[in-house]
Amino acid sequence: MEETTRLTEAIRELLDGGRDERLADVLAEAHPADVSGVIRELALEDQVRVFRLLTPQQAGAVLAELDDPILRELIGSLDEAEVSRALDRMPSDEVADVVQELPKEQAEELLDLMEEEKAEEVQVLLEYREGTAGRLMSPDFVAVPETVTVARAIEHIRKAKTGDGAFYVYIVDDHDHLVGFVPPHRLITADPATPIRTIRTEDVESVTVDTDQEEVARLVQRYNLIQIPVVDANRRLLGTIGVDDVLKVLREEATEDIQRLGGVAGDENVLDPPRSVFTKRLIWRLINLGTAVLAASVIGLFESSIHSLATLAVFMPIVASMGGIGTTQTATVVVRGIALGDMTSSVLRRVLSKELWLGLTTGAANGLVIAAIAYAWKGQVLLSLILGVALVLNMLVAAVVGTLIPIALKVFRIDPAIASSVIITTFTDVCGFFSFLGLATLLMKFLL
Amino acid sequence: MEETTRLTEAIRELLDGGRDERLADVLAEAHPADVSGVIRELALEDQVRVFRLLTPQQAGAVLAELDDPILRELIGSLDEAEVSRALDRMPSDEVADVVQELPKEQAEELLDLMEEEKAEEVQVLLEYREGTAGRLMSPDFVAVPETVTVARAIEHIRKAKTGDGAFYVYIVDDHDHLVGFVPPHRLITADPATPIRTIRTEDVESVTVDTDQEEVARLVQRYNLIQIPVVDANRRLLGTIGVDDVLKVLREEATEDIQRLGGVAGDENVLDPPRSVFTKRLIWRLINLGTAVLAASVIGLFESSIHSLATLAVFMPIVASMGGIGTTQTATVVVRGIALGDMTSSVLRRVLSKELWLGLTTGAANGLVIAAIAYAWKGQVLLSLILGVALVLNMLVAAVVGTLIPIALKVFRIDPAIASSVIITTFTDVCGFFSFLGLATLLMKFLL
Repeated sequence: MEETTRLTEAIRELLDGGRDERLADVLAEAHPADVSGVIRELALEDQVRVFRLLTPQQAGAVLAELDDPILRELIGSLDEAEVSRALDRMPSDEVADVVQELPKEQAEELLDLMEEEKAEEVQVLLEYREGTAGRLMSPDFVAVPETVTVARAIEHIRKAKTGDGAFYVYIVDDHDHLVGFVPPHRLITADPATPIRTIRTEDVESVTVDTDQEEVARLVQRYNLIQIPVVDANRRLLGTIGVDDVLKVLREEATEDIQRLGGVAGDENVLDPPRSVFTKRLIWRLINLGTAVLAASVIGLFESSIHSLATLAVFMPIVASMGGIGTTQTATVVVRGIALGDMTSSVLRRVLSKELWLGLTTGAANGLVIAAIAYAWKGQVLLSLILGVALVLNMLVAAVVGTLIPIALKVFRIDPAIASSVIITTFTDVCGFFSFLGLATLLMKFLL
Repeated sequence: MEETTRLTEAIRELLDGGRDERLADVLAEAHPADVSGVIRELALEDQVRVFRLLTPQQAGAVLAELDDPILRELIGSLDEAEVSRALDRMPSDEVADVVQELPKEQAEELLDLMEEEKAEEVQVLLEYREGTAGRLMSPDFVAVPETVTVARAIEHIRKAKTGDGAFYVYIVDDHDHLVGFVPPHRLITADPATPIRTIRTEDVESVTVDTDQEEVARLVQRYNLIQIPVVDANRRLLGTIGVDDVLKVLREEATEDIQRLGGVAGDENVLDPPRSVFTKRLIWRLINLGTAVLAASVIGLFESSIHSLATLAVFMPIVASMGGIGTTQTATVVVRGIALGDMTSSVLRRVLSKELWLGLTTGAANGLVIAAIAYAWKGQVLLSLILGVALVLNMLVAAVVGTLIPIALKVFRIDPAIASSVIITTFTDVCGFFSFLGLATLLMKFLL
């Protein structure tokens, strides 16, 4: 983030020196993405000062780059009028992004102050459910009837004034149904008198307004698209989704997977106020407490063995811990494989035998090492052997649990990423304590 | 992946029925991304049969979509001549992607059989280090001198025949230095007699051939780009990187972060042969064994206390387990925050106090619950209190460790994602066992 750091320093200096005119010049030359990066670093009063020095055009673009909670705080400190003036310059899908992060009353007040036509467009978008193509799409695009020539299509583009953001020219029939598209370079190089119908690509991937945004992202990635059209149930063209929006969706999805695997809600930001995440964090910590008590109750079954031979208590967490890394490694690879679409039902058996092989071989290697350490430490051959065997068994349990639990969750349409270590290591904790303490108890008369 | 499933079924039926002609028709109409999806599901001999029914154009596109190990196996079962014929139809950056996954000898043999000009282009790309912009870029683009008119620029595009993949027209000066670009829609809507210089955007984001691919991805995301030009040290234009390549980089990066947090190498695929991942898996499992032995040695210090009161062994893993979820949650949010650029030094203090607050509050809640459970189970007030206090202390340790270790790794330019649970939970395991068993030992005379 060097751009932000450098710019932040320059802007802090100008703010401290009260050199607002020079500051306005610096801001005018900066990219909105960089300005929003700087705003994130500033105190609220300085955020407001910087914001007021931006042109309305740039102010809108900066708002579009900011996220809750900073966006909400900043807008709360500004006049509704100046915010609505900035929003008027923005594409309606970006206004919708901003407005949806605000409290309902504030959102309505802003929309009332905006230009009527723009506000209506925004309201239409806001009616689509969050996470769908309808909510993500931009209603600005160029569509021409299939009967026109290339020259007429170019006329259309000239009038549409959609700016540099529009990519494809879409072709529609008499009923506004999507029947093809033309990439700009093909349009440029075609003879102006050519009927557009003859140069269109007919086979156009599209989604409906209800399509889940993850499915949109998957299609855009799979077919290397730059833009995907959004249609209604009758294939009438309503909007387009650009690859830049898809990049944002993919980033959110990756955050969700990473956080869920780590036992966090999936949309937590480092700067979220602690109170707002308290419940979500607590839930996973309580679930973990429950699984820990379950594991403890297994140990409780063998309390008298531990009383006879306290050394058992020293080694038992090792077996559980190794089961933990085994399940975590396996489940991580499987969960990511599911997300990438590599983990199909036809490869399940291959993956399971891979994990069992790895569990057996790395288990044997680790079992030998820990048996040797235990023998060197305590000098008890049988105890060392029991420890080694329990460890190998637990690594095999880890292979099965780590592979099958994410798959089972997927089958039941639950996000496999919630197969976080909290849940799956319960199995290896319980099995590990049980096999080690159980074997030791069975052979107790030889151990004492 | 419904497209693949449906297509796979249809293709399996045609393969079984030996209806190769009909199969060729079905394949000709399918998207290469879908065909490669099908190939992944088939046995090797069927992969070869399907591949031989593709047109050379499509065969090349399918190869570009496949990854190791399937790519390597399939190419190993084909004639070099048929592979090179398919590669001849592909853009040189995609040929480089395929060739780099093959063993060196096989790669050289293929390049020898390819058209000389294409093979040379590929070899130039392969000389750039993996993971740099040079390796990622496509050498196909349209560049025009700054002195031409819009009409002449369009002539250039017509001659360049770069296909639908080219987006921007780049403007270069007399020395081939990049001095701007024009988006296609601006070109379409401009008067043909306009000098191109007057409609260009001068402020063009570019990268050099040595720029790390993660930096390329960051810039493309930050500035919502569709394509970014790649220049040499003298700003001479050498190639362009499209957003589709950036999507692939981002997917690889997310995989790396997710896997490293789970104690896996970072580039493992569910289908990798077990032998090829054995060492990487084993290393983390051995590190985990080392940390588990360290934790066990702390328990060893208190062996005589456990001998006196075996109930301690029942509860001690609960304290460690709760420290584990605490550090994992915190580190997950912090590591993701670093990857997204939200976790800057200016917010460190705010994040640390958030985590300490969460550690204290959720710790107190969990401490009360576990103290109540322990009292109900064993009926010992003091032991229950010690357990609760040790748990709160460990949650505070978790907050500090989970926040500071990823940051420290980042400062030392080590990937924060390797702060996987394996490493960081060592701290809470050790602290948990030490505080619980230590407090119990100090107060032992009141416990017995």
